[in-house]
Amino acid sequence: MTGYALPIKRLIKELSRLPGIGEKTAARLAAHLLRVSGEEARRLAESILEVKQKIRLCSVCFNLAEGEICEICADTGRNRELVCIVEEPDSLIALEESGEYRGVYHVLHGALSPLDGIGPEQLPIRELLVRIAAHPVAEVIMATNPSVAGETTALMLSKLIKERGVKVSRIALGIPVGGDLKYADRMTLAKCLEFRRGV
Amino acid sequence: MTGYALPIKRLIKELSRLPGIGEKTAARLAAHLLRVSGEEARRLAESILEVKQKIRLCSVCFNLAEGEICEICADTGRNRELVCIVEEPDSLIALEESGEYRGVYHVLHGALSPLDGIGPEQLPIRELLVRIAAHPVAEVIMATNPSVAGETTALMLSKLIKERGVKVSRIALGIPVGGDLKYADRMTLAKCLEFRRGV
Repeated sequence: MTGYALPIKRLIKELSRLPGIGEKTAARLAAHLLRVSGEEARRLAESILEVKQKIRLCSVCFNLAEGEICEICADTGRNRELVCIVEEPDSLIALEESGEYRGVYHVLHGALSPLDGIGPEQLPIRELLVRIAAHPVAEVIMATNPSVAGETTALMLSKLIKERGVKVSRIALGIPVGGDLKYADRMTLAKCLEFRRGV
Repeated sequence: MTGYALPIKRLIKELSRLPGIGEKTAARLAAHLLRVSGEEARRLAESILEVKQKIRLCSVCFNLAEGEICEICADTGRNRELVCIVEEPDSLIALEESGEYRGVYHVLHGALSPLDGIGPEQLPIRELLVRIAAHPVAEVIMATNPSVAGETTALMLSKLIKERGVKVSRIALGIPVGGDLKYADRMTLAKCLEFRRGV
């Protein structure tokens, strides 16, 4: 980073900490920020500070929330008897964008991964069980990712929840819409057969 | 952007104004900023504000500078009789990183482009001529980009500078090091012949 003035070097360094942003991209972003109005740069800086100040975890479902309770838990139109378990807030957003789900969520903020030191104690599982015990739940949908950690988590949670007499389901694993069987991997093909349903 | 709390929506919107950052990437960056420590997020926000506060244009060469004069113009070890004209600060940085140039610069912050309303009046050309008149200059190197606008600018400036009895040169256009003639476009091949030199 020869030739840059110190504050620019500092900005490039901070920008390149962001995921997927290398030093070249960081330099390009910094050049852009130098070009835009002070007003526009300030809006970005302030929105970063604001998000850290205002966002916390929903006390019910651990989704990201502006207040004590997230928008979804606060929405009286949602079906509270249907709880969908996701690993990350991103998964929740993706499901919300599908527009197909009207239940509520429980966000784990991770998945079981003993090698990384993430056991049941590190995830809000106790809170999930308390929640299920306190309010009647008809069905819990396991929407953890189809990875080793996600499957392990789904398996462990399914066992705990079924013991409490609650129905548990797993989202279907299979060929994505618009996909092609010839490009699907072996595991996905095995799953698409396993998850088949009568027509 | 359904499902996001308002401050997160705002942050995603601001991030997606950055060049090359679409809404998906912005959401990923926002998720990252939500995860990192308040300290790290604040450092990024502050470095954005700092750069807008502290960086202005060098009064000599129009490079980005922390003070009145940029690091390069302030460096007494540089050859002030050799002035390299570049379109953008990025070009200057790229040349500096090559480590091959020990002269000074003049940054145009653009190139002539009458269709976009950028004529000689919109670039610091008058300042360049005043600079050349005030201090003895042995050679001016045209390092504008090899685009229509860059070539037009180089041509126009060359004429103005040669009229003042100063030697003008143009950076070589040709095959990049590590490149292959079979992948080079016709214009580049024409230029690599035009710029050939005796061995």
